[in-house]
Amino acid sequence: MSEIDKVLAEVEGCLDSSLERLFALLRIPSISTDPAHAEDCRAAADWCAQLLRDMGFEASTRETSGLPMVVAHHPAATPDAPHVLFYGHYDVQPPDPLELWNSDPFEPRRETHEGRERIVARGAADDKGQLMTFIEACRAWKTVTGGLPVEVTILLEGEEESGSRSLGPFLDAHADELACDLALVCDTGMWNAETPAITTRLRGLVHDEVVVTGPSMDLHSGMFGGPAHNPIHILARIVAALHDANGVVTLPGFYDGVPELHPEQRREWDALGLDEAQWLARIGQASAAGEKGRTILEKIWARPTCDVNGIIGGYTGEGTKTVIPSRATAKVSFRLIGEQDPMAIRDAFRKFVRDHLPEGCGAEFFSHGASPAIEIPADSPPLAKARKALEEEFGRPPVHLGCGGSIPIVESFKRVLGMDSLLIGFGLDDDRIHSPNEKYELSSFRHGTRSWARILAALAE
Amino acid sequence: MSEIDKVLAEVEGCLDSSLERLFALLRIPSISTDPAHAEDCRAAADWCAQLLRDMGFEASTRETSGLPMVVAHHPAATPDAPHVLFYGHYDVQPPDPLELWNSDPFEPRRETHEGRERIVARGAADDKGQLMTFIEACRAWKTVTGGLPVEVTILLEGEEESGSRSLGPFLDAHADELACDLALVCDTGMWNAETPAITTRLRGLVHDEVVVTGPSMDLHSGMFGGPAHNPIHILARIVAALHDANGVVTLPGFYDGVPELHPEQRREWDALGLDEAQWLARIGQASAAGEKGRTILEKIWARPTCDVNGIIGGYTGEGTKTVIPSRATAKVSFRLIGEQDPMAIRDAFRKFVRDHLPEGCGAEFFSHGASPAIEIPADSPPLAKARKALEEEFGRPPVHLGCGGSIPIVESFKRVLGMDSLLIGFGLDDDRIHSPNEKYELSSFRHGTRSWARILAALAE
Repeated sequence: MSEIDKVLAEVEGCLDSSLERLFALLRIPSISTDPAHAEDCRAAADWCAQLLRDMGFEASTRETSGLPMVVAHHPAATPDAPHVLFYGHYDVQPPDPLELWNSDPFEPRRETHEGRERIVARGAADDKGQLMTFIEACRAWKTVTGGLPVEVTILLEGEEESGSRSLGPFLDAHADELACDLALVCDTGMWNAETPAITTRLRGLVHDEVVVTGPSMDLHSGMFGGPAHNPIHILARIVAALHDANGVVTLPGFYDGVPELHPEQRREWDALGLDEAQWLARIGQASAAGEKGRTILEKIWARPTCDVNGIIGGYTGEGTKTVIPSRATAKVSFRLIGEQDPMAIRDAFRKFVRDHLPEGCGAEFFSHGASPAIEIPADSPPLAKARKALEEEFGRPPVHLGCGGSIPIVESFKRVLGMDSLLIGFGLDDDRIHSPNEKYELSSFRHGTRSWARILAALAE
Repeated sequence: MSEIDKVLAEVEGCLDSSLERLFALLRIPSISTDPAHAEDCRAAADWCAQLLRDMGFEASTRETSGLPMVVAHHPAATPDAPHVLFYGHYDVQPPDPLELWNSDPFEPRRETHEGRERIVARGAADDKGQLMTFIEACRAWKTVTGGLPVEVTILLEGEEESGSRSLGPFLDAHADELACDLALVCDTGMWNAETPAITTRLRGLVHDEVVVTGPSMDLHSGMFGGPAHNPIHILARIVAALHDANGVVTLPGFYDGVPELHPEQRREWDALGLDEAQWLARIGQASAAGEKGRTILEKIWARPTCDVNGIIGGYTGEGTKTVIPSRATAKVSFRLIGEQDPMAIRDAFRKFVRDHLPEGCGAEFFSHGASPAIEIPADSPPLAKARKALEEEFGRPPVHLGCGGSIPIVESFKRVLGMDSLLIGFGLDDDRIHSPNEKYELSSFRHGTRSWARILAALAE
């Protein structure tokens, strides 16, 4: 029996005790957004640190200006093995609305649903179940071999569900301690219950806010309507002009640095067989917006976008008011792909706005953050190793998914610590994270633990 | 000495006692919007009714569901004389902000400013000073001749500054008592201190509210941005499409029934010599919006418009939220001219919106009132008589002004009582109505009283 087979057998053999440990963590209502649960959050951090110490990690909780971080270190069995940083979060979303839960959200239970076992509790999938797959994989390695095939640092955050305010300063302050060869992030999902996935693309994001100013005061629309510039009209013309009739963003230079999808990646996504009508029906749409001639997966994973997230101007209460307002505001965001330069796009947007202003009207701008897109190259050696490990576990290769949203920790790891992340998770679309009756499939937990056991070995090769 | 000359001499002779009566009315803080002043409003109504009774009118206050109306009747000296309804309002705006007044807003005073005498008090111009010009003209006629040249009904409202909620039901319930040959409304202004004016045009008004609906729920702009329809974008495209590059409203049929300005009217307005740059500078604009190639006076008095008075959608708080909202709302109003049909324009707008919706997106509409434009034809005999009277008083003919806003009472008189209104007032642009230190020029009060004395005679001819 090979070493990895022994480790996998150990995972199988102690599945029940692994679940007991997971359940102990799930029982702690570590709701980071609610100050009334601050002590519970600290208890969850202490519990994790103690667990890791018991496993032979050098582990401690670290104070921040908010909730503590858990940091743990374990050396590799061989001196030249790579050093990986594993990231997860021990905090959870509030369970509200409580009345929609079928059982106590902090009393985890196993139940069988359509022939499959699942774990039901707040945090089962997001993220306690996921982070425990990695820890239990380490435990199996330790039990069987007495060591770990790679050097491991574990970083568990307690404010992921409430804004991650302490994370940036913590990374800055502990860059030397935390910088590794590679980050492993377990907070994403599989394509479906049979198909593992690695999220290799995250869109970047630029937020900008524009206030268009017209007359110097609010005006009566009867007395002044006609000659008065209406900032709502000006703003509407600008927003309307941001896309052409084919859904293409019209900002000059916007698509600079956006690569066409690699044919191999396109084939892989096409092979997933997404039912586009069903995807649209789920959000109540009978047609798709966005760039004509592109698939939905391409649009959300491989194409940049521009969306107005909020607009306001004039009178918005009940009834009517005959006003021409002196200003109108829009919050605009751009999702970025490839090498798009966030600052260049912000500049292009602001120039675009100014170019559309009537003589004498103005625009003020407010920045709200910007980050570039992230992509793990298909030829990255750690990616290839993880692919192989997942294929061995699931009997089919993982798909390379994109993520339309940004995951700030990945951007921070890249920017502050200079390392790439492998995003591998075992959640499913129907896990109801952030909703009542959150669950994690037992198969996700089991395959997840086994997958990490294999990936640790693969990365050491 | 002719009869009218005697009446005018009487106006001059009793100017001080006329002002004493006006001051007595100005001292009553009849702020209709503030329930704490309800008794003051009733006191003002009683004061007016008593004054009119003392003059020989059959006058009373009439209860409504809100504040009382004052209704007074006086027969004509000759049996076939026309019957006119005079309208004014005894309520005033709140004086806030009090600290910006140079004296007590309800302790009226005469002061000299740049060689001209003025009356400073809340309501001096809007509308107590104006309504008293008519009453004092009647008093002079009564004193000199013992009668009035025309039959006069006076209607004084007490809710003009707080929505006129009781007025419609009151007109409906007392149509027989109030229907006359002509209404005289004294709540408007002169062109300038030397040039009298009759407001002969009021733009109509259609309010409509549209809610554009896209996805069936708010969506994450990262996870769904691209294929998700953004109702803010859809609404912006609709708003932007409502005008072409020349400021012309694009709704099909919108200009049906809009006459080109009569050359004589155009000449009159051009002769007013409005300084357009100054007009724009007063509202902080360096350029004019609206239909290209038309003057400002034409735009606000003789051209229809479309303005969005309010828009809202998505996240409008501090900072950002990565949301694609499921709906976005705009409050839209159209100012109408000539024979434009309010219902046809509402229908055209709604069709226009629906025609711009992507497949599967929706729109809901909410009506908020509609009224047609009103215009007194240049060849109307009462208008010609009033013109002549004003020209005799001021030594120059009155100009025919438009009013970009609507004056609901005029529309109600037309619709409910079937009568036209002559809008003749003596206010000036700098009277600061609704603002601190409201004033009415003594010359406005004196010429106003004399003008009504002349107009009463002219209408009897």
